Amino acid sequence: MFRLLLPSIAVLLIVCSNRHSAVIAASGFAIVGYVVTDWLIPRVGPSFVKIGLYGKDQSKPGKPVIPESVGAVSATVYLLVMFFCIPFMFYKYMVTTTPGGGIRGVSIEESAGSAGSLFPHGKLSEYLSSILCLESTALLGIADDLFDLRWRHKFFLPAIGAIPLLIVYYVDFGATHVLVPTFLQGWLQMTNIDLGWFYYAYMVSMTIFCPNSINILAGINGLEVGQSIILGVLALTNDALYLSVGPQASRESHRFSAVVILPFLGVSAALWKWNRWPSRVFVGDTYCYFAGMVFAVVGILGHFSKTMLLLFVPQILNFVYSCPQLFNLVPCPRHRLPKFNDADWLLYPSRANLKDEPPKKIFTPVLKVLDKLRLIDVEYEGDKIISCTNMTLINLTLVWFGPMREDKLCNLLLVLQLMIGLIAIVLRHTLGALLFGHDNLWVIV
Amino acid sequence: MFRLLLPSIAVLLIVCSNRHSAVIAASGFAIVGYVVTDWLIPRVGPSFVKIGLYGKDQSKPGKPVIPESVGAVSATVYLLVMFFCIPFMFYKYMVTTTPGGGIRGVSIEESAGSAGSLFPHGKLSEYLSSILCLESTALLGIADDLFDLRWRHKFFLPAIGAIPLLIVYYVDFGATHVLVPTFLQGWLQMTNIDLGWFYYAYMVSMTIFCPNSINILAGINGLEVGQSIILGVLALTNDALYLSVGPQASRESHRFSAVVILPFLGVSAALWKWNRWPSRVFVGDTYCYFAGMVFAVVGILGHFSKTMLLLFVPQILNFVYSCPQLFNLVPCPRHRLPKFNDADWLLYPSRANLKDEPPKKIFTPVLKVLDKLRLIDVEYEGDKIISCTNMTLINLTLVWFGPMREDKLCNLLLVLQLMIGLIAIVLRHTLGALLFGHDNLWVIV
Repeated sequence: MFRLLLPSIAVLLIVCSNRHSAVIAASGFAIVGYVVTDWLIPRVGPSFVKIGLYGKDQSKPGKPVIPESVGAVSATVYLLVMFFCIPFMFYKYMVTTTPGGGIRGVSIEESAGSAGSLFPHGKLSEYLSSILCLESTALLGIADDLFDLRWRHKFFLPAIGAIPLLIVYYVDFGATHVLVPTFLQGWLQMTNIDLGWFYYAYMVSMTIFCPNSINILAGINGLEVGQSIILGVLALTNDALYLSVGPQASRESHRFSAVVILPFLGVSAALWKWNRWPSRVFVGDTYCYFAGMVFAVVGILGHFSKTMLLLFVPQILNFVYSCPQLFNLVPCPRHRLPKFNDADWLLYPSRANLKDEPPKKIFTPVLKVLDKLRLIDVEYEGDKIISCTNMTLINLTLVWFGPMREDKLCNLLLVLQLMIGLIAIVLRHTLGALLFGHDNLWVIV
Repeated sequence: MFRLLLPSIAVLLIVCSNRHSAVIAASGFAIVGYVVTDWLIPRVGPSFVKIGLYGKDQSKPGKPVIPESVGAVSATVYLLVMFFCIPFMFYKYMVTTTPGGGIRGVSIEESAGSAGSLFPHGKLSEYLSSILCLESTALLGIADDLFDLRWRHKFFLPAIGAIPLLIVYYVDFGATHVLVPTFLQGWLQMTNIDLGWFYYAYMVSMTIFCPNSINILAGINGLEVGQSIILGVLALTNDALYLSVGPQASRESHRFSAVVILPFLGVSAALWKWNRWPSRVFVGDTYCYFAGMVFAVVGILGHFSKTMLLLFVPQILNFVYSCPQLFNLVPCPRHRLPKFNDADWLLYPSRANLKDEPPKKIFTPVLKVLDKLRLIDVEYEGDKIISCTNMTLINLTLVWFGPMREDKLCNLLLVLQLMIGLIAIVLRHTLGALLFGHDNLWVIV
């Protein structure tokens, strides 16, 4: 019964969307994505293991072997769904620019001429370049999962995937101006500033940051997918604000954002079902890159990349907090996952051994201060520091809230992320209004 | 010296192309594609072997193990090159629609408004959908190479990759009319006929046929890449005809075709260098699908799919000739490669054993006729057929010209293909003109 219910709702939404909004069709396709991904994952899992794509779950008794890189299935289904979404994105234009049905203008010249002026080809190329960028990211993610690339290579990988997006942005759009905050406008004598090529550098950094930041806030069952779903929900909340009370001019961008994110939530929900504690599949780097790029694409082409970065505050905090270890001020072990205790099934913060490999001299006082502030847990032998907890948000949560079971820890992290994100959205539309003299949500253009 | 020469020429072509044609830039990018692919293949080959992507070369003494699916490298480089080709495809429009440099219109509305009417977004979305289609084909080819899909699944795989192309064709273009030959025009009372959905079915068949036909004319060193290169050269010859003496209206299509095919020839030439006899890498299904799809895309979006099919005559012949075995009228062994003889290093036609597994009764007289016509070689035991040569163009060539070394055989097949293709082009512009009353090459519109 339930198995038929979902597809029926999906078909209903897609069929009914024609005369209304592409967002409704996208909701339908989100359900299609969910159903297909959920159907595929258990069926292709064994094939993944067979070709060597598997991993050991370190935080379970006996360290069971489960399929790895299954996020590639979600990504592939997402891309297919997005292909089928195209006609619905552009339905209203197709109906107004052709007589309808099979009568579409007799010759090539004629149909190109009449459609050329009305059909939003610019929007279509934006949409296509987004899918192209996401597909390239998936392709490179798969290469990484297969060949296990080195950190210094894979860190920049997402930027390669973003090339089509940036080139189309350049060819097609080319806006590189940003607003100057009110209190600086008098001083700088301008209301907006052209960042030129710096704006492209900024967009490239964003396409590198978003995927990698999801990839490093990872390591416990369900966290990669969970945080991506929360990010999607937060972005959709922001879109809903604009689509309901925002000015007409910004609606197109946020409709685009919703259409991209909804099917992503569908395929992610199915992946979450199989990846949440106790995981029956791992998601792989493909998914982390892919998910991060979805948000980078939406932020860039929707022209709200700074708002999008606000939603990434937990990921940014995790990155900043990780820096001492990433830049080797404090020794960084190969894995920084929390430690699983076989006896009580709880996770404990994992620690960096500072006895054999002491931290940089200059950083020792900082460690002591961080310990005082309870931002890490330092272990002393007399006066000498012999270990500290690894600097990840996951370990910090365990330091603050004590050891807990993997699923509890994941849920706690996700709730924290949701709360921070909601606060960020509220601040964006209140503090943002103060800084820039107005908020684009409330100004009716 | 030579190592610096090629990149220098490439840079020169790309830089100089700005004020001239996108075809010149594409030639530059073809060289870039060649250099990069040629640099990558020997470097990534061992990684392919390490993750299980390798094959045994059946037609060499000792059956050495070499990397398989290396065509994926060509495909990836091609896609990257095509991304960078975008600004050069649209350079002339970008210069005319913006004041130049950083001055690009202050606001989003303004730049969208002014560019929207002049910039050929329709062309851009055609171009993007082609790359998207090729990238999807590569992705599915990689899935096939990794998971070794079943024939009945992989046969239809390319059609899935073609979805973005067909959907964009539908949304964007939608021309489904074909010309009616002159001698039928009076009888049918029309000069052209709207095939409607049948036209889409035809395009789908083309995207299924082209990739698969390359995939089945395969099995000896260098043949997959070699035939793709010949196909590319033939298509370029046809493009050159239109670009030099053809009417203005058809030039855009053939410029598009040349821009897509040139970089493909670049990456293929590098692959050929490593894949030709004696092969140091195998190309894999990814390459065959990818190559076939390049021609399908060009044929469909360039609106000369029937001419393109003419170039596929050897592949069509191979397919038709294979049918009795493909449809099990005659037993079909798992592999139909020619047999390698360790003693003289020559290839001999391989044979289907008809003694243990006789052919369908109804087909026995046909076999005898085919034998009489020297289209197969049948072996008798008294009156009973005990074996026949496998029905592939490769074996037929060996039946006709006698056993030969693998490289000789490959070259002979390629020369035959080139000759048939050139004859097809000549017939297309002479017989075609007779059938349709005019040839679109000679009519000045």
